[in-house]
Amino acid sequence: MATYVLIHGAWHTGTELGPVAGLIAAAGHKTFTPTIKGNRPGDPKTTSLAEAVQSIVDYLADNNLTDLILVGHSYGGMVITGVADRVPQRIRRLVYWNAFVPNSGESIYDMLPPELVDLFNAVAAERGDGTIVLPFQVWREALINDADLETAQRAYRALNPHPLRTLSDKILLKTNPADMIVAKSYINCTEDISLPHHYPWHPRLSQKLGLFRLIQVAGSHELCFSNPMRLAQAIIDAGRD
Amino acid sequence: MATYVLIHGAWHTGTELGPVAGLIAAAGHKTFTPTIKGNRPGDPKTTSLAEAVQSIVDYLADNNLTDLILVGHSYGGMVITGVADRVPQRIRRLVYWNAFVPNSGESIYDMLPPELVDLFNAVAAERGDGTIVLPFQVWREALINDADLETAQRAYRALNPHPLRTLSDKILLKTNPADMIVAKSYINCTEDISLPHHYPWHPRLSQKLGLFRLIQVAGSHELCFSNPMRLAQAIIDAGRD
Amino acid sequence: MATYVLIHGAWHTGTELGPVAGLIAAAGHKTFTPTIKGNRPGDPKTTSLAEAVQSIVDYLADNNLTDLILVGHSYGGMVITGVADRVPQRIRRLVYWNAFVPNSGESIYDMLPPELVDLFNAVAAERGDGTIVLPFQVWREALINDADLETAQRAYRALNPHPLRTLSDKILLKTNPADMIVAKSYINCTEDISLPHHYPWHPRLSQKLGLFRLIQVAGSHELCFSNPMRLAQAIIDAGRD
Repeated sequence: MATYVLIHGAWHTGTELGPVAGLIAAAGHKTFTPTIKGNRPGDPKTTSLAEAVQSIVDYLADNNLTDLILVGHSYGGMVITGVADRVPQRIRRLVYWNAFVPNSGESIYDMLPPELVDLFNAVAAERGDGTIVLPFQVWREALINDADLETAQRAYRALNPHPLRTLSDKILLKTNPADMIVAKSYINCTEDISLPHHYPWHPRLSQKLGLFRLIQVAGSHELCFSNPMRLAQAIIDAGRD
Repeated sequence: MATYVLIHGAWHTGTELGPVAGLIAAAGHKTFTPTIKGNRPGDPKTTSLAEAVQSIVDYLADNNLTDLILVGHSYGGMVITGVADRVPQRIRRLVYWNAFVPNSGESIYDMLPPELVDLFNAVAAERGDGTIVLPFQVWREALINDADLETAQRAYRALNPHPLRTLSDKILLKTNPADMIVAKSYINCTEDISLPHHYPWHPRLSQKLGLFRLIQVAGSHELCFSNPMRLAQAIIDAGRD
Repeated sequence: MATYVLIHGAWHTGTELGPVAGLIAAAGHKTFTPTIKGNRPGDPKTTSLAEAVQSIVDYLADNNLTDLILVGHSYGGMVITGVADRVPQRIRRLVYWNAFVPNSGESIYDMLPPELVDLFNAVAAERGDGTIVLPFQVWREALINDADLETAQRAYRALNPHPLRTLSDKILLKTNPADMIVAKSYINCTEDISLPHHYPWHPRLSQKLGLFRLIQVAGSHELCFSNPMRLAQAIIDAGRD
């Protein structure tokens, strides 16, 4: 039995990872699905990346979690990297699931294609409250392209406005991911075009891990909604020794 | 219920798309499989790309088709792009299936690797009648690599000499695909090596669509022969709202 | 019924290909799994690449094998290329399975990313007996990433130290693979990260074959251990006419 802590992506909370956590638990593991500061109801939308990381460091301490498999989705890759840098002794393996892999000094904005930075900045300027949301058409075509319309709409309604600072803040690390001695895996959903395939998650970002295990499965960026069972199996294959 | 119009590729006619259209129809949709001018029995082999496009514009008008999902395979990508530029009001979504995506002023020749242009020119020079055919060995290894030999031979016998001009003519568009407001999908068969994978269909050509939905399935360029059911499902997944 | 000769990779012997050969035989084919000189018990670890090639040329002559489908895995791609150059009349089709494809004058070292050359040289310097072995962690994460730990450990125990010279020797060919008139296939296991995906087996090496048939299957570099049935089917699909 292993312990899995699943860290969600931008616009999500831990609740949306409930179904996949349930399937991992049904396979005999302990699972946790915290929500990062900035995405919890009532959190200030000025939350910084450092505060986001700290909130998960605190969660692990509060729950006394050790020897854990720490899984990060998308933006969650920033958070698990920061957590692993802060409390490496708690972690057995890092699992990046179509997730950003930062070196010290990098932000998500530094890893995005310019057209997405432009889109996010335009949305933020229009909203003016320090958050961004995804236009539904982008969500439906580029993030959840493998689901039917009803699933895409239902999942969209669950999203929350995301604090912009966590995407533009640069992370500070004592150790870059390639030099971390913890075991590392990367799950790549092969139809994930939330980053365009000429500027992809894998291998562009995964190779920053140094030695890592690759797991690939069919699916979009939002496999947690479109096929939780396939995602659960991928996380287990990525997380085992 | 949706309406699907399937536009074949070079050397093919609509007849070869009959099995996949039948499966789409069995799922409750209306389907049409016209043959482009230049590939119909008796068509002049001097047919231009503009005439090819016009023949489908006329077909849609003659059959009073609207709100349709227009699917183009390979060369058919040129044709559906030209049709969408001419009669956008008839179209609900464009679906490119391992298909060329031209901007205004581009020909298929402009999107082919030099070795294929050389091959086609050599075949055309030898034939001297304005058409090209594919050598069987190229067909069998690079276009229908996922089928058994009998299927490859049977499918080869169904092909017709293709008018060279439709490959070398440059298309003229009022609006490039990325700027078309119609919804767009790209189906990428992952073992399609009719274009070599260092010079691929996706993402090299697909990214010219701007925002699009990616659907990927296992299979060669000629999935219509090797696995019509898998292709039909992919077209439905690509074509739904 | 066809005749398949399966040529193993570095660190392996023919024995490890027994399960996949058994499945190919069960489909009605003749199969052979020789061990290359240098990997047989008692072979001198100073074995050169030319001697390795010669040992398979001799094996085919001793067993009077003709009209055969010659399959090479990884390092075995060097060997089957050398054999095809020496005795093309014996061969119906070459099948490269995540295998090196050399032109005349090239070594495996010439086709490896610099970090792997450094790793192998460091291991060789430490061992000092002309052989290299893979560190278990590299094996488990980058070569057999799709298996469970028990399978990874069991397979690791079957490996033998590999003669370094066969990786650094340059091959001499009368004819480069692209110009060989024999039929050629390439099997690409899509999760094979033994070569990193920014410096991949396919299409970087496969495209050196000229016209070839692509077969892709899910799996790591060591699919012979993790899923022999899927590999057997891929070899049959790659080997048929």
